Amino acid sequence: MKIAVLGTGGGARAHIAKLAELGHEVHVGTRAPKATLARTEPDMMGTPPYQQFLAEHPGTGLHTFGDAAAEGDLVINGIDGHNAVAALSAIADQLAGKTLIDYAVPFVYNPDIEHPWPTPWGAMPVLDPCDSDSLGEQIQRALPRTKVVKAFVTQEQATVVDPKAIGGGDHTMFVAGEDADARQQATDLLTSYGWNDVLDLGGIVAARGMEMYAHMHSAIGFALGFGTHFGVKVVR
Amino acid sequence: MKIAVLGTGGGARAHIAKLAELGHEVHVGTRAPKATLARTEPDMMGTPPYQQFLAEHPGTGLHTFGDAAAEGDLVINGIDGHNAVAALSAIADQLAGKTLIDYAVPFVYNPDIEHPWPTPWGAMPVLDPCDSDSLGEQIQRALPRTKVVKAFVTQEQATVVDPKAIGGGDHTMFVAGEDADARQQATDLLTSYGWNDVLDLGGIVAARGMEMYAHMHSAIGFALGFGTHFGVKVVR
Repeated sequence: MKIAVLGTGGGARAHIAKLAELGHEVHVGTRAPKATLARTEPDMMGTPPYQQFLAEHPGTGLHTFGDAAAEGDLVINGIDGHNAVAALSAIADQLAGKTLIDYAVPFVYNPDIEHPWPTPWGAMPVLDPCDSDSLGEQIQRALPRTKVVKAFVTQEQATVVDPKAIGGGDHTMFVAGEDADARQQATDLLTSYGWNDVLDLGGIVAARGMEMYAHMHSAIGFALGFGTHFGVKVVR
Repeated sequence: MKIAVLGTGGGARAHIAKLAELGHEVHVGTRAPKATLARTEPDMMGTPPYQQFLAEHPGTGLHTFGDAAAEGDLVINGIDGHNAVAALSAIADQLAGKTLIDYAVPFVYNPDIEHPWPTPWGAMPVLDPCDSDSLGEQIQRALPRTKVVKAFVTQEQATVVDPKAIGGGDHTMFVAGEDADARQQATDLLTSYGWNDVLDLGGIVAARGMEMYAHMHSAIGFALGFGTHFGVKVVR
């Protein structure tokens, strides 16, 4: 299948590598391909330069967001939450009629907000939008011709493409979106990644809960200790 | 042990019944004991009148919030989120030096907020406070002499006091609060309820994530279908 991945961060790379391994034709999009390929140092998150990743994963060369999206029959959005709506709106024509899976958390670090208690893991981000809206809903409103599905966001990046690494794979992935066929497409992709328990939450409004779960995810990760990988299972 | 439960709603009754069954001396507090006992019809949530509950659970008579709190060595707050800070502040002296376990979600139904998509389960509430603060933190700030622990809130009310009813009890409860001894007290109570996996999330700031998880809880419950009980397990 022809799948476009927009973004070159850690989460995007996990999908790019896994999709290539599964034999898909992967089209990787980035804002400025030449600049990204010219980098020789790790980024601020410690992610190695893309040229190193490319050397290890042949066939994952970089294109612009628009060129990559135009080639994909299915599109995965790995553009960071703060920039996603603007960057995706600019390529609305290339995304028209397609399923777009989004996993971004709209975290912002706002130094003007006073937090009564510090978090043990440092600066406490807030979500924008939050509670009465979500990034998933914003993207769907910005792209009315695209079938937006929120997924992946409640699990660690490495776990999303390798669920069996945690507890034998017995944990739960969620999908939400307005279009049932698009939710099924996302579910099929997840099944190919190894997921056995994909829970369909229905409409895109459920993206609120999925994004707002980010604080729990941070707290659980910190409580278990850095480097302890975990998943979340809906037991019923 | 002498335990005070503030509130007579469904969640409070689950604790009252379980604590009485475990042999604790339970002191139940309500805003207006005589008025609550005079009721003969179910409330708006469909909860039967308290006089019926009392007939089935002898020794759980009603007192004022202050009188109940004064008797308890440990206090469970079941006052609804909207009224909790004011009601608890009014009895700060009776709560001084004690551990107070809070499980409220600060949901408000604000008809002025326009939601781009309706939720399948009807009116979409929002949380106030949310994201940069939480009800757990607000209560702790209002009661500096009390050791506030947030707990219970991520699970169904019946499951909190009967974890084995779901998946054999193999799921996770969270506790958060500034005082480690108070978190341990809450953990010990949960162990007596049958919980095997209580994850200590550290400081009260983690109450944000626990309260904000409420939207996920609603979405999961709706996806599974009304009446399907579930728990959430941190798999690691």
